[in-house]
Amino acid sequence: MKGREWHLRRRPSGTPTASDVALVEVTVPEPGPGEVLVRNTAMSVEPYMRGRMSETRSYADAYPLDAPMTGHAVGRVLASGPDGPPVGSWVRHELGWRELAVVPGAAVDVVDVEGVDPAAFLGVLGLTGLTAYVGLRRIAALRPGETLFVSAAAGAVGSTAGQIAKAQGCIVVGSAGSPEKVARLTEDLGFDAAFDHRAGPAREQLAAALERAGTDGIDVYFDNVGGEQLEAAVRRMREGGRLTLCGAIATYNATEPVPGPRNLLLMIWRRLRMEGFLVGDHEDLRPDFERDMRAWLRASVVRPLETRVSGGIEAAWPAFLDMLAGGSVGKSIVDLT
Amino acid sequence: MKGREWHLRRRPSGTPTASDVALVEVTVPEPGPGEVLVRNTAMSVEPYMRGRMSETRSYADAYPLDAPMTGHAVGRVLASGPDGPPVGSWVRHELGWRELAVVPGAAVDVVDVEGVDPAAFLGVLGLTGLTAYVGLRRIAALRPGETLFVSAAAGAVGSTAGQIAKAQGCIVVGSAGSPEKVARLTEDLGFDAAFDHRAGPAREQLAAALERAGTDGIDVYFDNVGGEQLEAAVRRMREGGRLTLCGAIATYNATEPVPGPRNLLLMIWRRLRMEGFLVGDHEDLRPDFERDMRAWLRASVVRPLETRVSGGIEAAWPAFLDMLAGGSVGKSIVDLT
Repeated sequence: MKGREWHLRRRPSGTPTASDVALVEVTVPEPGPGEVLVRNTAMSVEPYMRGRMSETRSYADAYPLDAPMTGHAVGRVLASGPDGPPVGSWVRHELGWRELAVVPGAAVDVVDVEGVDPAAFLGVLGLTGLTAYVGLRRIAALRPGETLFVSAAAGAVGSTAGQIAKAQGCIVVGSAGSPEKVARLTEDLGFDAAFDHRAGPAREQLAAALERAGTDGIDVYFDNVGGEQLEAAVRRMREGGRLTLCGAIATYNATEPVPGPRNLLLMIWRRLRMEGFLVGDHEDLRPDFERDMRAWLRASVVRPLETRVSGGIEAAWPAFLDMLAGGSVGKSIVDLT
Repeated sequence: MKGREWHLRRRPSGTPTASDVALVEVTVPEPGPGEVLVRNTAMSVEPYMRGRMSETRSYADAYPLDAPMTGHAVGRVLASGPDGPPVGSWVRHELGWRELAVVPGAAVDVVDVEGVDPAAFLGVLGLTGLTAYVGLRRIAALRPGETLFVSAAAGAVGSTAGQIAKAQGCIVVGSAGSPEKVARLTEDLGFDAAFDHRAGPAREQLAAALERAGTDGIDVYFDNVGGEQLEAAVRRMREGGRLTLCGAIATYNATEPVPGPRNLLLMIWRRLRMEGFLVGDHEDLRPDFERDMRAWLRASVVRPLETRVSGGIEAAWPAFLDMLAGGSVGKSIVDLT
């Protein structure tokens, strides 16, 4: 069988371009013993992938050159061995960026799609949702009634985190990169206030948004961007506040190091705690998370914010660039069929 | 009775100078009901006092102008009411910067000087020692065998923290501001390695010091300075490392904001936790601390590093300036008698 896949041709400098990659048609081998052949139906494009395109040491290995890139995908089993999942099952795995994937049996995860869109396992029911859940519940220990500020709040993780916090009786303020995204946060997702971080200094806009939300300080900052917004958040943290570092979009494309907050002395004066985490360390929370998230989805307490891209595998690279440039809202999912 | 005291005359800009203060002779009033008259025998000069001379909002109030400054002192009771401590008792209180102090009874703390120099209650047996103890034990949760890096290690808190960690079987690396101080750390206090932060880029010197200590990464950074050394420490933290923010000497005299670490992305990749604290929130640890520290002092596991200044109250301001400029080692204590 033949299938197409995206290869990394060279490491991007700054913003990636079309000449950094190539869409290649390959002959997919028969699955060997213990392997599973999957027809991918959807894949996600995510900010962390930009990091893996660089050689910089990161928590994940750099993508090799002239080989297919990887990432989360869902699909249906086309062929499988005697111990593998039945043909026709829905599975989630990490060999995205391709139409057909031959995956080791241990690396596929059969999912229960009863009542949910299978692509939800790329987003709210996948690592995206688990990331928001772990960040709020375990790292920040968010309590009802507290004030949460979340940056990149119209992104996949941010939009989920904000909605989970609202469901727990918190005041939620978010930032996003366009007036349209800001409107989605307050009008569709129930945020108490939101601001466009491109419209002026984060420091002033954050202060005004907190005021609109009827609060004067932040108990928990869920940071997806770093840079200027992190400094602005430190400035408005309440005593005993927690800063959960989840991502740093502001630094991913940067060719110069992005300065850290100049006001870290406030970390001492206000007894603040700042902690980075990677969701992979917290798999033990997955059963609780899946139970809670399925309930929140049924009750429409959490409504997935997604950008669905059609056009098949060819559309995946442009969708990645668009997501990176801030053109998408929520989880960017590419339908491959 | 007449006594002399140091008044703040104006708020220093950058490094304080002699014209910012005045030594004033005053008539000390009779102690009123519930008050205690104390002849101070020793006072400490400390970096945080620089912060209180500025108007900048801090965790502690700014010193008022044209009034005596405050700070830790020990002394003996000269006069006291029926419910107060007996005449002749040794007490610790916060009305330093003066020869005679009239202190509310509730604000004096009778100390047991059996077997110890009363001035120890300004240092290793006082808030200095408690700060090191709380920072390592509660904030960092330092474990035996881990590697500790402590900056301003020839300072009062840093020298105590390093010695406590050595007593727990840790590898300890410190930084200080002169070759003489560096020598004290490795030759007198048992540090595994130390470096002079003024001799070159912190990043390179820290790497070399870790190598000399036979280790390649840091589990706990006890930060007393901020700035460049904080960035260098973040770079060498091990997975799951903790950064305890205790002070930020690098920023106290700065007239421009000091940039934060440019490598906070490592906080995520390596799951680091950074936490600021103020010792006043952790008074509950004081009984454990006093028991442990008296034992460590008896066993010479902790040896107080002090700069003793004689010359009475007149010597207090020059001693403060010298401490701030890095001319002292360990706790700076001014003998007032």
